[in-house]
Amino acid sequence: MKRPVEPISDRNPRVVSAVKLSDAAHRRRTGLFVAEGPNAVSGALDAGLVEEIFIAESAEPRFARLLADADVPAHRISERAARQLSDTVTSPGLFAVCRHFTVRLDDVLAETSPRLVAVLVEASDPGNAGTVIRVADAAGADAVVLAGDSVDPHNSKCVRASAGSVFHLPVARERDAVAAVGALRGSGLQLLATAAAGDAELSDPAFAQDALAQPTAWLLGNEAHGLPAALHEQADRSVRIPIYGRAESLNLATAAALCLYESAKCQRLRIRSSE
Amino acid sequence: MKRPVEPISDRNPRVVSAVKLSDAAHRRRTGLFVAEGPNAVSGALDAGLVEEIFIAESAEPRFARLLADADVPAHRISERAARQLSDTVTSPGLFAVCRHFTVRLDDVLAETSPRLVAVLVEASDPGNAGTVIRVADAAGADAVVLAGDSVDPHNSKCVRASAGSVFHLPVARERDAVAAVGALRGSGLQLLATAAAGDAELSDPAFAQDALAQPTAWLLGNEAHGLPAALHEQADRSVRIPIYGRAESLNLATAAALCLYESAKCQRLRIRSSE
Repeated sequence: MKRPVEPISDRNPRVVSAVKLSDAAHRRRTGLFVAEGPNAVSGALDAGLVEEIFIAESAEPRFARLLADADVPAHRISERAARQLSDTVTSPGLFAVCRHFTVRLDDVLAETSPRLVAVLVEASDPGNAGTVIRVADAAGADAVVLAGDSVDPHNSKCVRASAGSVFHLPVARERDAVAAVGALRGSGLQLLATAAAGDAELSDPAFAQDALAQPTAWLLGNEAHGLPAALHEQADRSVRIPIYGRAESLNLATAAALCLYESAKCQRLRIRSSE
Repeated sequence: MKRPVEPISDRNPRVVSAVKLSDAAHRRRTGLFVAEGPNAVSGALDAGLVEEIFIAESAEPRFARLLADADVPAHRISERAARQLSDTVTSPGLFAVCRHFTVRLDDVLAETSPRLVAVLVEASDPGNAGTVIRVADAAGADAVVLAGDSVDPHNSKCVRASAGSVFHLPVARERDAVAAVGALRGSGLQLLATAAAGDAELSDPAFAQDALAQPTAWLLGNEAHGLPAALHEQADRSVRIPIYGRAESLNLATAAALCLYESAKCQRLRIRSSE
């Protein structure tokens, strides 16, 4: 073990502050958030974002290897403190206080030439946002942008739903959604918006060959309200996902999965066929 | 209005029984469940499954049209009873006590020759199950089967996540997963299992042309534990969804979306090209 696990009181200001990180305002003030469970904590350690680890005494044996490899301060907390820190009914008892993972979109675009970006506009559900970040990671997207008045991705539900993916690819938050979309276009990405009455169909082979292989930012609207008109106007094409049955629509994460994977497939087929 | 809305006391046995329907055992005993909100209640009315409607006084004006069209008993309940009936923080105040929508798999297979079926094996999360039912409906699947020790689809979280789709396509519950899968094979469906180390890749054009256009039942395992070995052995092929980034896996609903839509697309292209 690189550092011994030191006991810490429930009333220690660091524990008290960590518990308060469930509050968005406290996260904003401190620039910190809590990652819970082995996947998230490992991801945060790999990303170099961990300030300190808190572990319930009962959980220590189970995570001995993780603790042995982690070169950050680690504190043993009471089961009571673990319950207070936890966002789940059955807590794994392992927590890391981490620095925020979000980055500036300008920095992302200065460093890379993205080919695939997911833009969540006015995303209000943290679980949905985390699931989209996970599927964007799986589809090999270069970044996720939370645009407009979107949920804080450091929310514990978002971090958990992402299953570690918040630490795998750049996640940018941009209040000004129109400016964010303008910056994405400026870096050579076409803008495709999902819409129930879109003029292109995602599964149309001609559309796939023509448009989907191009570098793309997908604009994904809020589930209840869709995409704001100002953003819809910015899009190069609006794309509908075919509904073959009687469902009115898809939920945000499944729609994002279909769009991002279709782009990833078409982009890879294009690269393969040009080799 | 076909029937006037009659006030009913919080202590009326029908209200008390409806509140208890949040409990799985009470749902099983009575064969009833509660649908909440306009989408679910409309779906249940269309499906002819509603026994009676409960509506909070404050919500009555908003749902006047729905109440006018519904030919079932409707009762005005107190805001307190509405809060007790509700599964959500901000309740729409509209509830229907409904008969169960689940059907027997044998009856489904006797009535139709299915081309696309989603089989959820040991599904434990009701929200995930509902989202899969929604995406199966959107992809035009002929049925969803909840196999093995799966969550009760009449759970309010499942009904809500399905966004009305539990009323759109047959949902079967089969305790004996191996028997269910045997029945599906017997009705001419190939069995495709999702697996991280599957030997076929979902986005491989050759696999798509060869296999995905065939009538298919997708076997989708529990997110934490995957598919039981006994079921995996039954599958004709195990299929992996490509992971292009650093995510370890996809969540159940996004994986289901990709598999079901890929089948739906390939089946439709095959039909179109043979016309």
